[in-house]
Amino acid sequence: MYALDRLVAPEIGELLAQRRFDQLRAALLEFEPADIAELVDNLEQDQAALVFRLLPRDLATDVFSYLDSDQQQNLIAHLGTERVAALINELDPDDRTALLEEMPAEVAQRLIALLTPAERSVTQSILGYPEESVGRLMTPDYVRVKPEWTIAHAMDHIRRYGRDAETVNVIYVVDEVGALIDDLRIRQFLLADPQQTVESIMDRKVRALAATDDREEAVRQMQHYDRVALPVVDSRGILVGIVTADDVADVAEEEATEDIQKMGGMEALDVPYLDTGFVPLLRKRGGWLSVLFLGEMLTATAMGYFEGEISKAVVLALFIPLIISSGGNAGSQACSLIIRAMALGEIKLGEWMRVLLREVASGLALGALLGAIGVARIVFWPARAKLYGEHYLLVAATVSISLIGVVTFGTIAGSMLPFILRRLGFDPAAASAPFVATLVDVTGLVIYFSVAALMLHGTLL
Amino acid sequence: MYALDRLVAPEIGELLAQRRFDQLRAALLEFEPADIAELVDNLEQDQAALVFRLLPRDLATDVFSYLDSDQQQNLIAHLGTERVAALINELDPDDRTALLEEMPAEVAQRLIALLTPAERSVTQSILGYPEESVGRLMTPDYVRVKPEWTIAHAMDHIRRYGRDAETVNVIYVVDEVGALIDDLRIRQFLLADPQQTVESIMDRKVRALAATDDREEAVRQMQHYDRVALPVVDSRGILVGIVTADDVADVAEEEATEDIQKMGGMEALDVPYLDTGFVPLLRKRGGWLSVLFLGEMLTATAMGYFEGEISKAVVLALFIPLIISSGGNAGSQACSLIIRAMALGEIKLGEWMRVLLREVASGLALGALLGAIGVARIVFWPARAKLYGEHYLLVAATVSISLIGVVTFGTIAGSMLPFILRRLGFDPAAASAPFVATLVDVTGLVIYFSVAALMLHGTLL
Repeated sequence: MYALDRLVAPEIGELLAQRRFDQLRAALLEFEPADIAELVDNLEQDQAALVFRLLPRDLATDVFSYLDSDQQQNLIAHLGTERVAALINELDPDDRTALLEEMPAEVAQRLIALLTPAERSVTQSILGYPEESVGRLMTPDYVRVKPEWTIAHAMDHIRRYGRDAETVNVIYVVDEVGALIDDLRIRQFLLADPQQTVESIMDRKVRALAATDDREEAVRQMQHYDRVALPVVDSRGILVGIVTADDVADVAEEEATEDIQKMGGMEALDVPYLDTGFVPLLRKRGGWLSVLFLGEMLTATAMGYFEGEISKAVVLALFIPLIISSGGNAGSQACSLIIRAMALGEIKLGEWMRVLLREVASGLALGALLGAIGVARIVFWPARAKLYGEHYLLVAATVSISLIGVVTFGTIAGSMLPFILRRLGFDPAAASAPFVATLVDVTGLVIYFSVAALMLHGTLL
Repeated sequence: MYALDRLVAPEIGELLAQRRFDQLRAALLEFEPADIAELVDNLEQDQAALVFRLLPRDLATDVFSYLDSDQQQNLIAHLGTERVAALINELDPDDRTALLEEMPAEVAQRLIALLTPAERSVTQSILGYPEESVGRLMTPDYVRVKPEWTIAHAMDHIRRYGRDAETVNVIYVVDEVGALIDDLRIRQFLLADPQQTVESIMDRKVRALAATDDREEAVRQMQHYDRVALPVVDSRGILVGIVTADDVADVAEEEATEDIQKMGGMEALDVPYLDTGFVPLLRKRGGWLSVLFLGEMLTATAMGYFEGEISKAVVLALFIPLIISSGGNAGSQACSLIIRAMALGEIKLGEWMRVLLREVASGLALGALLGAIGVARIVFWPARAKLYGEHYLLVAATVSISLIGVVTFGTIAGSMLPFILRRLGFDPAAASAPFVATLVDVTGLVIYFSVAALMLHGTLL
């Protein structure tokens, strides 16, 4: 579907190699900024700067806002100061914030110094909000009108200021001090009588984000109210900016990616997998892997306590991986379910008891299912007596009872860990499948050998 | 933030209990449809129908479109046929499709019979597209204009037909047979001279979805082009509908939820966790859990082959959980990374070789890291000779070499399985952490005991 990337890229490469810049420029102008950005992202550094310089200034700014941050940094290094100054002054404030957030601090400072006083003041006020806050996402370029204006007056105003606004799909009504009173869709202006006042089409139902809200709140409200833009107010209710659906969709995607990576048992990457350097990739993975390994060492310690039992009944060792993995798998299901439901706001912290009861019941049922399969496997296996010894029925009972215990423990651990982490102020997504599996492995061994001690006392043990 | 849910719900409950319906209606009218829907969702069936009947008809339709499908079904059962007929005729076609998809087939048929011929024809054509296709998401309510019209004529047309359209933020230009030529933002009309033609503001750059595209394609394009709506065309290029950002955001959220649940090692739920019945929940989890259990039984078979080694050197058994879990953890990291990168389109099927090389290198490095920690643990442990016997150095070497092998195998399995599944036409997200762990457990045992046989031959074995 992205024609430029798949079909035209080789042709573009050829025009570039033959230095036929006029034709190249003409070819590029056929495409959407997002497509040109995808092409530039895939070029080598020098070539990217060459192609970028061919673009008319307005289009260049648009294309720049769609580039990967790597390529943005490269272009800033390759373009002259004058071009860079023009570029970052023309970027929309929200795109500029995103760029500055990704830059090394000293580059960011140098770029801010290139801004005009007006743009610098806008940017510094946005950067004054905490990281990952709604304030960092917003743009101050919106259209605002007064309630006492006529629709005709408001439409004139929209025509005058709409060109530079991020959107004219929603128009904001403010009072004389700038406090937000209402948000109106452009459709309401188009359908109204020009002589009516703005006030007459207001319903004064308006939901605003606070600039200091976590950006996930923007995702939730955008989803809840099905809006294309939401207003942002400061603590006094003064309208300070808007966030638009495209920015919020990016946040939702990033947050889901972070959750998935954390649930896989690692730190979240800041950039796409293939763009992450080998060393940062190892660091993000090695840290958690080592922590889990240290935790998993407790299994060796636990096994040390049961060394005597194992040497007496080696048959017990055969089922260790089966039993502890089943607990881990059940735990992985439970924690994935709960973490996602929490992220979507379907489950609140106070509902832990309801979840616990449900998961205990699920764990018992699922454990019984696996236990039954386990018993069948041992009892109906042709070589049962040879493999598992004469006490194979007792072994089957031990395995089956242990499975119920371990699977139930796994579902409890997997479902409650996200609640505990959240209660302690951590991200519930840190309750990764490997984390739960490690917890369950250690406990699972203790459950298994305790059941074995009870069941096999006097026979195998 | 959702004031109605958190603060006003008890008060609403009281008004309801006291049957003070006028005050209740007045209280409800203060809120947004999405908030009223959230309140109704949390009421008992009878009360929900009571509250719903109080709402003015237009608002009721709006509120209905925000309700959970459970509550929608309940209201359809509780409201009279006349009211149901009015309601479903007034629903936007995209919301109506979503409703009918969730209904049992016989209820859906009965509802379709209640539609006016015009609405029925619209709905049946939408339902004619495959499930999970773009066609199912679209609405045919958009505004289209002709290139030869003046802006003034087009604005009149927008005013006349805009009221019933899903959006007027984007206006579509079609030729005389209805083929899509361009999409224009409402801003372009507002800023243009009324005497200009529509053609004069066109750039003829338009990206359309095909009605038969998978709905994930809508997510990708909406993300790529930062639009609030995308046009949908049939195979002849005729404009048949539009999809809007809010519907696509719902799809993106659902797809991420499905992926997370599958990656947790279960079938994706169709409805939120707390709304899923106990039996369906068990079925979705029990199926995969049993399959994984059957796979994991191979570990018992593998262990059976090494029973002799274990009885000779029980110390070997101590490290089994540690070694196989480390492989599973490394695999879980790799498969989470790759599945998500694939879902976002960052990695294409053809890039498997690049990923493989990267993951082999990562696996060797991470395995070496864990191996080093493992050696340190054994060699510097105070009771090493007592716990691990006189050949503790050989045991340490065995564990460490096995870790390198198992972790490398885990990263290879975790990263390549999504490619293999996708190549075979399955969902890469089925490569869950538990699935990878099961694969790695079996192979890990074989690696461990093979290394042990080599290293400990003549001493412990």
